[in-house]
Amino acid sequence: MKFTVQKDHLVKAVQDVMRAVSSRTTIPILTGIKLVVTNEGLTLTGSDSDISIESYLPTIVDDQQLVDVKQPGSIVLNARYFSDIVKKLPADFVELESDSHYVTTIRAGKTEFSLNGFDAEEYPLLPQIEEHETISISADLLKFMIRQTVFAVSTSETRPILTGVNWKIENGELTCIATDSHRLALRQAKIDNNALTNEFKASVVIPGKSLNELSKILDDNNEKVDIVLTEHQALFKTKHILFFTRLLEGNYPDTSKLIPSESKTELTVMTKEFLQAIDRASLLAREGRNNVVHLETKGNTLVNISSYSPEIGKVVDEIACEDIKGEELKISFSAKYVMDALKAIESPEIYIQFTGAMRPFLIRTVNDSRTLQLILPVRTY
Amino acid sequence: MKFTVQKDHLVKAVQDVMRAVSSRTTIPILTGIKLVVTNEGLTLTGSDSDISIESYLPTIVDDQQLVDVKQPGSIVLNARYFSDIVKKLPADFVELESDSHYVTTIRAGKTEFSLNGFDAEEYPLLPQIEEHETISISADLLKFMIRQTVFAVSTSETRPILTGVNWKIENGELTCIATDSHRLALRQAKIDNNALTNEFKASVVIPGKSLNELSKILDDNNEKVDIVLTEHQALFKTKHILFFTRLLEGNYPDTSKLIPSESKTELTVMTKEFLQAIDRASLLAREGRNNVVHLETKGNTLVNISSYSPEIGKVVDEIACEDIKGEELKISFSAKYVMDALKAIESPEIYIQFTGAMRPFLIRTVNDSRTLQLILPVRTY
Repeated sequence: MKFTVQKDHLVKAVQDVMRAVSSRTTIPILTGIKLVVTNEGLTLTGSDSDISIESYLPTIVDDQQLVDVKQPGSIVLNARYFSDIVKKLPADFVELESDSHYVTTIRAGKTEFSLNGFDAEEYPLLPQIEEHETISISADLLKFMIRQTVFAVSTSETRPILTGVNWKIENGELTCIATDSHRLALRQAKIDNNALTNEFKASVVIPGKSLNELSKILDDNNEKVDIVLTEHQALFKTKHILFFTRLLEGNYPDTSKLIPSESKTELTVMTKEFLQAIDRASLLAREGRNNVVHLETKGNTLVNISSYSPEIGKVVDEIACEDIKGEELKISFSAKYVMDALKAIESPEIYIQFTGAMRPFLIRTVNDSRTLQLILPVRTY
Repeated sequence: MKFTVQKDHLVKAVQDVMRAVSSRTTIPILTGIKLVVTNEGLTLTGSDSDISIESYLPTIVDDQQLVDVKQPGSIVLNARYFSDIVKKLPADFVELESDSHYVTTIRAGKTEFSLNGFDAEEYPLLPQIEEHETISISADLLKFMIRQTVFAVSTSETRPILTGVNWKIENGELTCIATDSHRLALRQAKIDNNALTNEFKASVVIPGKSLNELSKILDDNNEKVDIVLTEHQALFKTKHILFFTRLLEGNYPDTSKLIPSESKTELTVMTKEFLQAIDRASLLAREGRNNVVHLETKGNTLVNISSYSPEIGKVVDEIACEDIKGEELKISFSAKYVMDALKAIESPEIYIQFTGAMRPFLIRTVNDSRTLQLILPVRTY
């Protein structure tokens, strides 16, 4: 194997595939990155067997030569050393050359590294996915949908299925749902179903960790991401990256019954002001009382946000609301859960629907039913 | 006690005195910040009994009212809660009011906190320092001198005196020296001795931790810092801040004998290029071999920087030098120590003087004898 590659492109590709590499793996070769160079280009692969990422650099892009192949071949190099090395190389072009003992020389400027490599034949093969059903979403919308739901997955392994996000496709729409059984986040969007009939249905559960990593790899632009869902794997494809993730096995609970269809108290409030008041109240609620703050309506245009800790002190904040409809209300909730939900919503105003102090309440974007955050209150009164 | 204060000024003052507050203290009241308000202004104090910081906000600065005093008084408030609270208050002005039970109400906009405070009479008094000898240095030069030396203090408590920086004043010059017995950093500067005769001499040892905190508090400008050194305390005074630190007791070793007066090999090299080559070589040297890299002269204009790890691989970097004078040289040293020294020097070119492979070598700024970094080599050849 012998080739020259533009350093900046190599650094970016290594960074991308590194996201799948874990230092704690039971399969030693997975601490490495696989490099395969053909006359068409260079492919890098990283994997922790749950997530696998493949990044492809073609020899020529837009009349610019990224890779100059002298001899095709393949090698596996220690991911941590290789990524540290390429970042710190002094020149714009890097030459890589492997000998028959897998020793790989990395040359740039006046610097020469020799790294002991491994036989690429020993590297596990990526999942084979037959591409029968492909849906497409723009990268920025996909990132946004992930950000609006993934924070609500469970971090406990008591019910492993809840550590993933349920993706449902039906009637040309994608619905993402996450819940840790104390709160629920839901986001819907139309999909570009050029290749898809409206009859296509699917329901899979994607690990939260995989979605977080995917989100970091995707650029913030409206380039199309193709998504293939199979029984055990999901594949996300951009121009130069393939992102594979294992799916979680088991049935995701039917969450539709959790969402109240009626409400007893409704209010509209400025998101930022509401978030900051809860943030302040939570300062005194952090310890002992499990981060619980209280909300109380005061007439038709005010709510109080308060918190009390016998040792430290107390806080009361008064927030102006648009016309509060329905019953008076005193309710207590986790400041963290409500702040997480408000941060995910990204709308200047929010609309909250309560169904009494002991029932879940809904936070929605004003005039948009595609985003929904549900939170279970805490019994204190 | 009752007063109103501009929020931004209060936040800054609280941040400054917080640097002295430790959450792990055996004296409970030192987890608090002391506030004293008189008709002249507001004084905040934080202390961990090694370092004490006092920040002063006068009622009026440049025709602008910072503090509006309604009733003088004093209180001690929990430092962590108070600093978190003031940062998150919603308005430009904050009102503080304490009652006879030390309960303190903090009002801003529509927010009202009540914090349980403590009697200010129980707060320890700051060290009393008679101001007989004051020296002055501009804040930016002081920060620079700290940065160029403090990294070389020992982190081990085996010889506690080496955890401090030795400050010597003689002939109107300040010399700062730090060593952990593997390396030594030295920086000299003229002091503004308007209040000082050239006969004044002093030698104290200031804890490295104190100098790091002082450096963070000082602004990057040429405002004068007045320094008072006594037997057990040092005091640093800026316009609105008093910074007290305990001194280390004991005799600092005489380091002048460590510095070689002659050399056998001398070379001049570009700092950045040299630093980057050592940084790359250290990538393979991190584990097992204690971060040791090798330097070897090659004729009169080249040095090789190299490192070798049997399991991982090897690296060789070639660096161009100006005319290398004296004997050929092979030497091994800690990459970390040399990189620390090079980062402290801040000069585009450096001058290195070696006295053989087993003797300490000196890194200096070209044409400036006021900065010196000494490093002990590692025996490998």
